[in-house]
Amino acid sequence: MSDLPQHIHIVEEGPREGFQIEPGPIPTIDKIALIDALSLTGLRHIQAASFVSAKIVPSWADAEAVIAGFTPRPEVEVTALYFSKTGLARVLAFRDRLAITGSISLAASDTFSRRNLNRDRAAQVEAMRQHVVAHAEAGVPVTRLSIQAAFGCNFEGDIAPTRVMETVADGLHLAAETGVTLRELSLADTMGWATPARIEQLVGAVRMRWPDLRLSLHLHDTRGLGIANAHSGLQLGVACFDSTVGGLGGCPFAGHPGAPGNIASEELVLLCEEMGIETGVDLDALIEAGRLAERIVGHPLPSAVLRGGSLRRFRALAS
Amino acid sequence: MSDLPQHIHIVEEGPREGFQIEPGPIPTIDKIALIDALSLTGLRHIQAASFVSAKIVPSWADAEAVIAGFTPRPEVEVTALYFSKTGLARVLAFRDRLAITGSISLAASDTFSRRNLNRDRAAQVEAMRQHVVAHAEAGVPVTRLSIQAAFGCNFEGDIAPTRVMETVADGLHLAAETGVTLRELSLADTMGWATPARIEQLVGAVRMRWPDLRLSLHLHDTRGLGIANAHSGLQLGVACFDSTVGGLGGCPFAGHPGAPGNIASEELVLLCEEMGIETGVDLDALIEAGRLAERIVGHPLPSAVLRGGSLRRFRALAS
Repeated sequence: MSDLPQHIHIVEEGPREGFQIEPGPIPTIDKIALIDALSLTGLRHIQAASFVSAKIVPSWADAEAVIAGFTPRPEVEVTALYFSKTGLARVLAFRDRLAITGSISLAASDTFSRRNLNRDRAAQVEAMRQHVVAHAEAGVPVTRLSIQAAFGCNFEGDIAPTRVMETVADGLHLAAETGVTLRELSLADTMGWATPARIEQLVGAVRMRWPDLRLSLHLHDTRGLGIANAHSGLQLGVACFDSTVGGLGGCPFAGHPGAPGNIASEELVLLCEEMGIETGVDLDALIEAGRLAERIVGHPLPSAVLRGGSLRRFRALAS
Repeated sequence: MSDLPQHIHIVEEGPREGFQIEPGPIPTIDKIALIDALSLTGLRHIQAASFVSAKIVPSWADAEAVIAGFTPRPEVEVTALYFSKTGLARVLAFRDRLAITGSISLAASDTFSRRNLNRDRAAQVEAMRQHVVAHAEAGVPVTRLSIQAAFGCNFEGDIAPTRVMETVADGLHLAAETGVTLRELSLADTMGWATPARIEQLVGAVRMRWPDLRLSLHLHDTRGLGIANAHSGLQLGVACFDSTVGGLGGCPFAGHPGAPGNIASEELVLLCEEMGIETGVDLDALIEAGRLAERIVGHPLPSAVLRGGSLRRFRALAS
């Protein structure tokens, strides 16, 4: 009845997502402390900073200092987010400290793309073509196709799976044309519209059409369904998830101030651990990192596990 | 692949659970205002008060005043919680305003029962026998069997499904002996140990052994898995759930201060609504009631939907 994976790969996006959205300013040393704490939890991939324009995102004006400052560990892949050729050049200055690969990112909602980036479907694809060319020139592989608003859109409402499939096809077509070999397809619930039923429908359809493409889910907990959605993904064999420690990061979209952002890493790890799916993460260490994140931002974070705790210590007390 | 129900029945326990655990004191008129607001949302069953000793639970010293004060509506069944013969007598004074039926309540964890009620397995059953007799004397039907700690226990650790089945069998045996016809079996995740896998295992086993017993789930969101657990219950055909508006009520057990309590009614309703399962509830009206509950208790409540909102208004804006 289910294709539960034996182990999952988590991309921890707490530092990048969280410190971008917090009113801050968050001191550089605090950002570094959280990255270093996370890299001792067993997490294998941390997205640590955002190399975007400091004019648009002042909270990441210290991206260089953060990346220069964390303690690298051979078992942990640290990455950074960037969108432009300028961002790529800044990231490339840290080739020795960062794992650098490119993504083709397309939105399944035309309205979202037009409003957020002022690009229609054709212009999105064209922009990504230039993005791929910039990577080729820099000798950086592009490995991932990421589809935003894959489950619904605040501006456009429900997004039909056929529309998502067309967007995936656009991305695969671009990859083929530009000689890119994609390793992963990420479906992002950018605005918190996913439900278990929509996960089943879309993941099922994508998996049937492109059985060899590794799927990843980027889920938001805007309306409390994030972990139920992750569970539905697991049941369909999805083994890669983005999440944030403590549930760091909020929802950047208008219309739901204060809503949670990404699913909390602790809740995802607990779900997997209690179902016999390996994450490689020490949940109690991750909870400590989440509490550090709460002290840094100065307010409670959404993760219920930060208050409920793991089950391990109760088992230990009981035995 | 699934037995999703077409519609579900929700027992809204927010007033009873929430006002019991809040540091308060909550004014009687505020309790009444929330009950009245909830009874206009389409909810059909509200557990409104707790008739317990005011010495033990001072926050419910005004149970009589609350039940005397709310506005009854023919379509809404209002109930109250009680444990003792004294409690039953107090509730019976409101036969005209309350729906009164009795429950047999047993804990699947012996340690929990001994520590919480100072009763072992035999003493639990004996106490429930007297409880049933008291109901028979008052002419009140006993209709429900409720199993506490059905998915795990802070004192005892994991609880094997076989142990839960034995506890259910104890209750059914007592019902048969005392001439009681049970209509419902409630499985309670009293301390937040359930996972989708444990729901599948236990609900599957119970349904196979007692296919005619209507199942109900009382889920807590202590560790953020509550809605994923509800979804697993739905997939197995469970159509009755307890929940609380806003996620009112916290976790009364030692070891996780500040952890969420029951699953939030708004999240349960959103999950069902978006999956085509009828709840009868107007989600936007329920969200307004949740915001009233937040104003009454004076702090944010756990329900993500209170901040993320329903999807209806975004669909309306998009169309």
